[in-house]
Amino acid sequence: MKAVGVVVEYNPFHHGHAYHIECAKKETGADVVIAAMSGNFLQRGEPAIVSKWARTEMALKGGIDLVFELPYSFAVQKADTFAAGAVSLLGAAGCEFICFGSESGQIEDFYQTYHFIEKHKETYNRVIKQFINKGYSYPKALSLAFQTLEPEGNVIDLSLPNNILGFQYVKAAEISDYPGKMVTIARKSANYHDQHFSSASIASATSIRKALFSQKGDISQIKSYVPIHTYEALRQYRQNYGTFHDWNMYWSYLKLNLLQLNNTELKEIYEIEEGIENRLLSLAIKCETFPHFMEELKTKRYTWTRLQRTLTHILTHSTKKEMNVLDGNVSYLRLLGMTETGRSYLNQLKKDCPIPIISKRSSFTNQQIQTDTRASRIYAMGLPEKYRQKAIELEFMQQPIYIQNDINDKKNKAI
Amino acid sequence: MKAVGVVVEYNPFHHGHAYHIECAKKETGADVVIAAMSGNFLQRGEPAIVSKWARTEMALKGGIDLVFELPYSFAVQKADTFAAGAVSLLGAAGCEFICFGSESGQIEDFYQTYHFIEKHKETYNRVIKQFINKGYSYPKALSLAFQTLEPEGNVIDLSLPNNILGFQYVKAAEISDYPGKMVTIARKSANYHDQHFSSASIASATSIRKALFSQKGDISQIKSYVPIHTYEALRQYRQNYGTFHDWNMYWSYLKLNLLQLNNTELKEIYEIEEGIENRLLSLAIKCETFPHFMEELKTKRYTWTRLQRTLTHILTHSTKKEMNVLDGNVSYLRLLGMTETGRSYLNQLKKDCPIPIISKRSSFTNQQIQTDTRASRIYAMGLPEKYRQKAIELEFMQQPIYIQNDINDKKNKAI
Repeated sequence: MKAVGVVVEYNPFHHGHAYHIECAKKETGADVVIAAMSGNFLQRGEPAIVSKWARTEMALKGGIDLVFELPYSFAVQKADTFAAGAVSLLGAAGCEFICFGSESGQIEDFYQTYHFIEKHKETYNRVIKQFINKGYSYPKALSLAFQTLEPEGNVIDLSLPNNILGFQYVKAAEISDYPGKMVTIARKSANYHDQHFSSASIASATSIRKALFSQKGDISQIKSYVPIHTYEALRQYRQNYGTFHDWNMYWSYLKLNLLQLNNTELKEIYEIEEGIENRLLSLAIKCETFPHFMEELKTKRYTWTRLQRTLTHILTHSTKKEMNVLDGNVSYLRLLGMTETGRSYLNQLKKDCPIPIISKRSSFTNQQIQTDTRASRIYAMGLPEKYRQKAIELEFMQQPIYIQNDINDKKNKAI
Repeated sequence: MKAVGVVVEYNPFHHGHAYHIECAKKETGADVVIAAMSGNFLQRGEPAIVSKWARTEMALKGGIDLVFELPYSFAVQKADTFAAGAVSLLGAAGCEFICFGSESGQIEDFYQTYHFIEKHKETYNRVIKQFINKGYSYPKALSLAFQTLEPEGNVIDLSLPNNILGFQYVKAAEISDYPGKMVTIARKSANYHDQHFSSASIASATSIRKALFSQKGDISQIKSYVPIHTYEALRQYRQNYGTFHDWNMYWSYLKLNLLQLNNTELKEIYEIEEGIENRLLSLAIKCETFPHFMEELKTKRYTWTRLQRTLTHILTHSTKKEMNVLDGNVSYLRLLGMTETGRSYLNQLKKDCPIPIISKRSSFTNQQIQTDTRASRIYAMGLPEKYRQKAIELEFMQQPIYIQNDINDKKNKAI
């Protein structure tokens, strides 16, 4: 059996994702699609709107065969570390292909860009530093430095969000000697950051989330923008847990932590650097809401996502010491769910997988998975009190979700 | 002007407290009554039902002339440290007398007990250790060891809660060479721990609190057990802040902290010793409510109050490093409120007070007062979200409460 890997967050799963899975199979001729999926906290430093279990269900019913959790130590990270973790995970899972969506859609252009940058590495890094010293954020400095090099030939536009991520996947694959093949497909219509629905049935996850939070009680307006099983999973989640997750529900906790810790203690948290601890502490005392806090915190120097990741690390109490993932490799495959096909593949994979495959959290422990568990439990603390305990206990109690192929086929046809 | 000092928590102020103030003045002939009052967290390791500001108002309207905050580092402590801090505070405030209520009511008996124990110190301490090794709590071991010594003469019953505290005041006064005179008066009727109202108009603070929480919305049943100004202050507090405080409203925060910290980090918190960190961590994951958590946590070894103090230190993030109050002396007098008489006395005191008198929090800082401020802000975090910011800012914004004597007299007459 041949497998293609995808790197996903599914926050939530939508038609664009279904299209991506379909293309990934078609383009590569793979029998199995494997997802490296962020857990309860995401790359942009946000809680996922629904838990990793609910999103796993969406994924399996949407065409994914195996879902593995990208550990927190890689998921809540800037693009290069995130990509390194994801490529390492999919490599360990035996994927012969990794397929990502991009604005470019041309894999050769990614390689040309990568080799061009490698060739001018010294200048590139020097210019990046110059832009950072001028007060630009890291991603902005990367993009500006790239323009400064006046690249020739078919290079990609490194100011577009999916190209940036794709570039990091290609770079991670090259650095880690990933033995498979990288594939990219052009994304359809909706832009990543779109806030509003366009007329097409493919909407960005951002606009879907906005709609979910804007109409308290009524989620029906998103119905045409997501597969029916996503809609059902969202409805079910809110019924089971009373709410979707966003930063506002963790603000009390974050504020508490910022009232508890002093600047020395805060500096032990991952990504707390360059004196930002002092601004965090003084703003926490004076800001009443999360949006107000973020607005006051924002500077040209730090991207919104970098700041949110920093706050996520405070909330999950993830320290510099434990978040050391310099070697770029995941050390286990935490299985969140599988289809029947996925299970067959898994049986084959088990024979020569280089790292442990974890179906039962209690059967394995190391620092990285402890960080995942801590983050998952703290994620549950955002729920209304009466739902928390159940959600906290899921981390150890929940079996990987299993979906029979025929159910899946039927569901897919129903879309 | 002559001053008598009292050590109080007023949680809330009731007729028994008013009686104590009256007796203290009569017995000593003092012109001024000064209170060393615990701040927002109390000696038993609980949040006060209303803030230190509301309780200061009750105190001033109930006959106290000057209220100083007993710093957190002394207030949330076992009896001997609590007493040392209070005696040191009242000494610095120039009190010629310290008057405490007790079951005994005989000051000579306290001194006889103290000297008897001093004489048999070695045996006493050895026997205490033996009882602790047998698994008894510290206060229980003290009381049992004392009985073992077969004391003769007029000694006090060291199993009664107010005698225990009084003994510690006398001991602290002896150790610190407090220059004034210790006075005790017999407490009237209600026992400290009474859960229910008796027919008398003097009810324990415990039973009043129980009544306040049991009838959501209706606090009128306590009306006859507290002075009218206490009733008004309680009513006003709930109107301004939406609720009274109890441990249940901090349970989410405590649970969050116990999900965030590992055992090494937890051991940096004051009073976390002897492996209790491991029990705290595993119980936090499995217990849904604060009462359930306490029930599971309780052992013969630790008193309920010791455990609650430990949990308070976790909540307020008070570390071993900062809670070092070995020398037993307070380093400032934080003024919370005064009457007109209190103000005259204060003007006199200012001339030769050995430590700074703080009327404005922003004008002074040291580690001890930072701990107070942190605890006060975290106390405010227990309030419903919309009232928090106002309460957090009080710590720096609130002026000492001032009550004119004539208002006070009128109010007192109205009781």
